[in-house]
Amino acid sequence: MSSHSDDILHQMRSDAVNIFHAALEPVNPYNAVQRFVRVEGNSLLFEKDGNLETLDLTRFEHIFLVGGGKATAPMAKAMEDLLGDRIKAGLISVKYGFTEKLSFTEIIEADHPLPDSNGVKGTQRIIDLLNKAGERDLIFSLISGGGSALLPQPAGSIRLEEKQIVTKALLKCGASIDEINAIRKHISASKGGQMARAAYPATIINLMLSDVVGDRMDVIASGPFVPDEATFQDALQILHKYGIEDIPTSVKDHLRKGIDGRIPETPKQGDKVFNKVHNLIIGSNILALEAAAKSAEGLGYKALILSSMIEGETKDVALVHVAIAKEILKSGRPVKPPGCIISGGETTVTIKGKGKGGRNQEFCLAAAKGIMGLPLRVVILSGGTDGNDGPTDAAGAVVDPLTVQRGEKRGLEISEYLANNDSYHYLEKTRDLLMTGPTNTNVMDVRIMLLKNNEQ
Amino acid sequence: MSSHSDDILHQMRSDAVNIFHAALEPVNPYNAVQRFVRVEGNSLLFEKDGNLETLDLTRFEHIFLVGGGKATAPMAKAMEDLLGDRIKAGLISVKYGFTEKLSFTEIIEADHPLPDSNGVKGTQRIIDLLNKAGERDLIFSLISGGGSALLPQPAGSIRLEEKQIVTKALLKCGASIDEINAIRKHISASKGGQMARAAYPATIINLMLSDVVGDRMDVIASGPFVPDEATFQDALQILHKYGIEDIPTSVKDHLRKGIDGRIPETPKQGDKVFNKVHNLIIGSNILALEAAAKSAEGLGYKALILSSMIEGETKDVALVHVAIAKEILKSGRPVKPPGCIISGGETTVTIKGKGKGGRNQEFCLAAAKGIMGLPLRVVILSGGTDGNDGPTDAAGAVVDPLTVQRGEKRGLEISEYLANNDSYHYLEKTRDLLMTGPTNTNVMDVRIMLLKNNEQ
Repeated sequence: MSSHSDDILHQMRSDAVNIFHAALEPVNPYNAVQRFVRVEGNSLLFEKDGNLETLDLTRFEHIFLVGGGKATAPMAKAMEDLLGDRIKAGLISVKYGFTEKLSFTEIIEADHPLPDSNGVKGTQRIIDLLNKAGERDLIFSLISGGGSALLPQPAGSIRLEEKQIVTKALLKCGASIDEINAIRKHISASKGGQMARAAYPATIINLMLSDVVGDRMDVIASGPFVPDEATFQDALQILHKYGIEDIPTSVKDHLRKGIDGRIPETPKQGDKVFNKVHNLIIGSNILALEAAAKSAEGLGYKALILSSMIEGETKDVALVHVAIAKEILKSGRPVKPPGCIISGGETTVTIKGKGKGGRNQEFCLAAAKGIMGLPLRVVILSGGTDGNDGPTDAAGAVVDPLTVQRGEKRGLEISEYLANNDSYHYLEKTRDLLMTGPTNTNVMDVRIMLLKNNEQ
Repeated sequence: MSSHSDDILHQMRSDAVNIFHAALEPVNPYNAVQRFVRVEGNSLLFEKDGNLETLDLTRFEHIFLVGGGKATAPMAKAMEDLLGDRIKAGLISVKYGFTEKLSFTEIIEADHPLPDSNGVKGTQRIIDLLNKAGERDLIFSLISGGGSALLPQPAGSIRLEEKQIVTKALLKCGASIDEINAIRKHISASKGGQMARAAYPATIINLMLSDVVGDRMDVIASGPFVPDEATFQDALQILHKYGIEDIPTSVKDHLRKGIDGRIPETPKQGDKVFNKVHNLIIGSNILALEAAAKSAEGLGYKALILSSMIEGETKDVALVHVAIAKEILKSGRPVKPPGCIISGGETTVTIKGKGKGGRNQEFCLAAAKGIMGLPLRVVILSGGTDGNDGPTDAAGAVVDPLTVQRGEKRGLEISEYLANNDSYHYLEKTRDLLMTGPTNTNVMDVRIMLLKNNEQ
């Protein structure tokens, strides 16, 4: 290897990290709020479906702030910086420690990913606030990843633990995420549009930072302000379909009451409770990918976004990316080098070993094996936008065709580390971990592959 | 669904099938030979690394034809149609039944994928012919998929069954394909460039139809005319690495003799035996994909080739393709509709069920589940270029967003068919199988995704 090759590879590694940081910029929760919402004098301007809409703030008696999610505190900070003391009251639920210094908004800290009683109490107080809001009030709702666990409210006499028994049984039986959500929304008093019903007839602007593949608004935090498609009847049928019999009596009673019409159905598309609801996605994986593409183009790479919705087993998704890298080097397809392939979404790791890692690190380790021996003109980065990949302090990793060689020099057998799901300890020793620290946002993962020709 | 939507979907399904057939055209064995080799008067012209080279046929005393592989008979037919009675003698080894009516070339039929004694005898006769060829002779070698099994020649006193014991042990222990090949070439008398040594000092034009991911010439049919990188020492180390002790004495003795220099090493890069060898890949997956792209563009789709080297677990590779389809519909990335995404290579199916299917059908079944509910503007085709997907009479399948609905109408639960690896029986009932009959070629698989907007 010439030292010239070495220099270029180092430059490409640094380019990849810079492109990753560029991807984070538009999905930073504070930035995202202020990009979609603006105050000019007494007018509130916000972007909806690509159009700029205006609300006259003097029309409203009170402005309230509610919300839940891991990134909700900096979102509230952005709203406070826009509206200041026009905010009459605010109440948000965040994960323990995920706070900010706020002036007009109270922060409830609760547990995630498993909800706790703090979360339930906080959600009840939020619903109380929504119930009190009247026709001339304006409510901003701030929702981000983790919102479902941080805004729990079991319906009727169901206890939190009973709700969790049902969720666990559903996860175990292989029900689809839509099926699981249909049931969760029908044993909850907050999910599936029910917060919109509580707030009716107030005006609602619901700002969402999406952490779900495909950005479906009814899925983000289980859609507290979004119409629900499923019914009590659907929920019961799903339980039958998977033969789930052993569920708490309180849950059965609640579903039965729903079917008998003794408690109201979740609000549906066209329901009046949504007449004054504005649901806006202010940050999502594709926005991050588009920022990455722009940054890559600025650095001289032709950028191609594959998809923001990549799912599947991590190591197989890595193989597909490696195949694309090899094709680019061989035939200049799908882009001519210098090129940058960008993808997002969230893959799965079927854990078979006992090692330490996360899906981004495992992606990079599998990719490192695949690009071993290629020219020193390939760099692959995969990172969680929250800066926190699995139970590790790394956001992900950056690998190149020499990663495996660095591992071998340290006596590491890559196949063993892959089989043991121990990507962290391999990539730590090859010095390929990507360490960003917490980023306060979460729009799933970003993957960046950079490729050059030998002449470039 | 409007009948207009219906019509467009039918048109797109038919487009996909037409694009698949266009992909087959340049890799048809007969066409491929005649595209790379031409005779004008006494001159032989052939394309090598993009340049046209010329040989004066009057320089040669004899022209011989040898070869092995499933598609070798039509390749020989193409050479006979070019050279006629200039061919002094020919001998090729093909799979039982894969024959053609030839005039100057004898066909040996042998077993595949497990070699048999017919294959061994035929290979010995081919090596005898090569050994007799002199400096003023020209040999055409015709190699295609299956050539490794159809040109078997255990080295020294090793018997065919003993060779197979070693191969099985290697497959079982998780050795890489390069490691397996290193050993196979060192217990064979034909593989790893050893046919080039037999033919030296004749001129050799070796025409290869590639059925391997990445088109490595030393891997196609184990590279009978291609330099080998591994040594006897490597072969022994690989056996040690995986703790393979229980191998036949004949194999151990042979490797030991090789290490002691009592039998020659496989010929390496730079060896004089390759001085007059021209190794040409005349057909490969990327050629098929490029033809597909051209056909798609002709039908009004913007085409993007992802890679000809896709590997990995089939259903996860399908998920990546579905993610790209969804992104195209949502954001027009990586191509604006009407678009066509093309990929090739060969995926893996980890069989867990007892159903009937092949990797292309399983790809389509997993994709059908993923595109269910999307607008009726998505068609996904996956087909084996040999027309023969797994142990079925289908080449693959063509699915659309209504495939799952057709299945449900017939009472089929798609998840059960996926779990049982029973794609054939599902897709047979939904009438989504792709039936081409045998195509006489094999350059792995071709996948085609077509996407339009609602307005298109």
